[in-house]
Amino acid sequence: MRFTAEITSDGVCERPFTLGDITGVLWSPAATADPSDGAQGSPLVLIGHGGGQHKKAPGVVARAHRYVTACGFAAAAIDAPGHGERPKSESDQRSIATFRERMAAGEPVYSQIASYNAELATRAIPEWQATLDALTSAGYRGPTAPVGYFGLSMGATLGVPLVAAEPRITAAVLGLAGLTGHDTLAEAAALITIPVEFLLQWDDQQIPRDRGLALFDAFASREKTLHANAGDHADVPRFELDSSQRFFARHLTT
Amino acid sequence: MRFTAEITSDGVCERPFTLGDITGVLWSPAATADPSDGAQGSPLVLIGHGGGQHKKAPGVVARAHRYVTACGFAAAAIDAPGHGERPKSESDQRSIATFRERMAAGEPVYSQIASYNAELATRAIPEWQATLDALTSAGYRGPTAPVGYFGLSMGATLGVPLVAAEPRITAAVLGLAGLTGHDTLAEAAALITIPVEFLLQWDDQQIPRDRGLALFDAFASREKTLHANAGDHADVPRFELDSSQRFFARHLTT
Repeated sequence: MRFTAEITSDGVCERPFTLGDITGVLWSPAATADPSDGAQGSPLVLIGHGGGQHKKAPGVVARAHRYVTACGFAAAAIDAPGHGERPKSESDQRSIATFRERMAAGEPVYSQIASYNAELATRAIPEWQATLDALTSAGYRGPTAPVGYFGLSMGATLGVPLVAAEPRITAAVLGLAGLTGHDTLAEAAALITIPVEFLLQWDDQQIPRDRGLALFDAFASREKTLHANAGDHADVPRFELDSSQRFFARHLTT
Repeated sequence: MRFTAEITSDGVCERPFTLGDITGVLWSPAATADPSDGAQGSPLVLIGHGGGQHKKAPGVVARAHRYVTACGFAAAAIDAPGHGERPKSESDQRSIATFRERMAAGEPVYSQIASYNAELATRAIPEWQATLDALTSAGYRGPTAPVGYFGLSMGATLGVPLVAAEPRITAAVLGLAGLTGHDTLAEAAALITIPVEFLLQWDDQQIPRDRGLALFDAFASREKTLHANAGDHADVPRFELDSSQRFFARHLTT
């Protein structure tokens, strides 16, 4: 893991890093004397970006800043395979071209995108796990510090199997995703027992409502909350950022 | 409107009242010099209790205290017809006996209770409106002060038509209720355009999940949020009280 810079502003220290092929960013409170001693055991929130976005998309950065400044947590994001600074494979490019053609023709792309994301997840999960290992080894996360995961849309389709596979993650905000026919997501969701806050947009043109509700239903968590808001895929209300902050504060601090 | 007592504790002044047959309670900040001058235009939250409960059920009192102490609002509750201090009619007694028999026999009572509540609503709506008129005339609510409504279960089945009929109510938290076959509730919900926070229990043994979702769907509000939590009818998590407080603070204060 190689940190390539250190930029401090508004009380937040931002450290871009690389780890093999992975490109990522770590955010932590600027006030912390030496965050790499990991001594405080501050909680860490992993933030998964949406499809076509990247680790420093405005929504990701705003969210990271909020968790750092309001909760004193650290936050980390990595580019998903084929996103941000990472090269797209020929297969990535073919898939994306197909989505664009279908969308331009007004055809539904829900199932195609879901299969593409399922394939991406098999690549993204070990990358998130390697990132978590490396942040821990480098001392930016205490060995037993709680970890949360946030991801909507593609960030949830990659996040559900990640959360199912990774016992260090103990609370997750997920959403804007749904079950499909050929469902590895359903199997992963059934393995999840940690507290989940799940966001759904009631008038989502991309995610059929019943598929979203079915995914929420599939989580085995004893504590799970669905927040469904009026509006389309991109219309998640701003107060849900506050809500996710309270959710992580409740579950990641003792 | 006759106030029968004035009890102050924990920063809250509680004033039981009668208005014709109606028995109710008003809560307001104890620090307020003279709340009956209505000058501050403080928001007022009306709290509708659940079936078989009453205006001073522990949940109602705790909620009223929270809105008063955390938001500086006033809050009011009245006994629904046949509840609390109010006599049950022969018809009320017959209906309740029928519910008990069916429940004891393990038979579903959802439709029966829904019809009973629909009938109760025709009596309760003018009572809530008279209460609001009287509190305004008596100076406990400023003439243009914002009004919110909170009600779950029976408090929602009475609340949905009340909110639809009463333009002074500008934000509502409702839930644990659903559409039925013979639906005046659906018509009322379609008239509601104010912000609504709607609670649903995902494993509710009394309200079929699809009926609850259908009621949420029926609201015409541009801003509506569904909070669905794992658990049965009585298991609404405590953090939903915090959420309703923030919802009312957001919508009833300028």
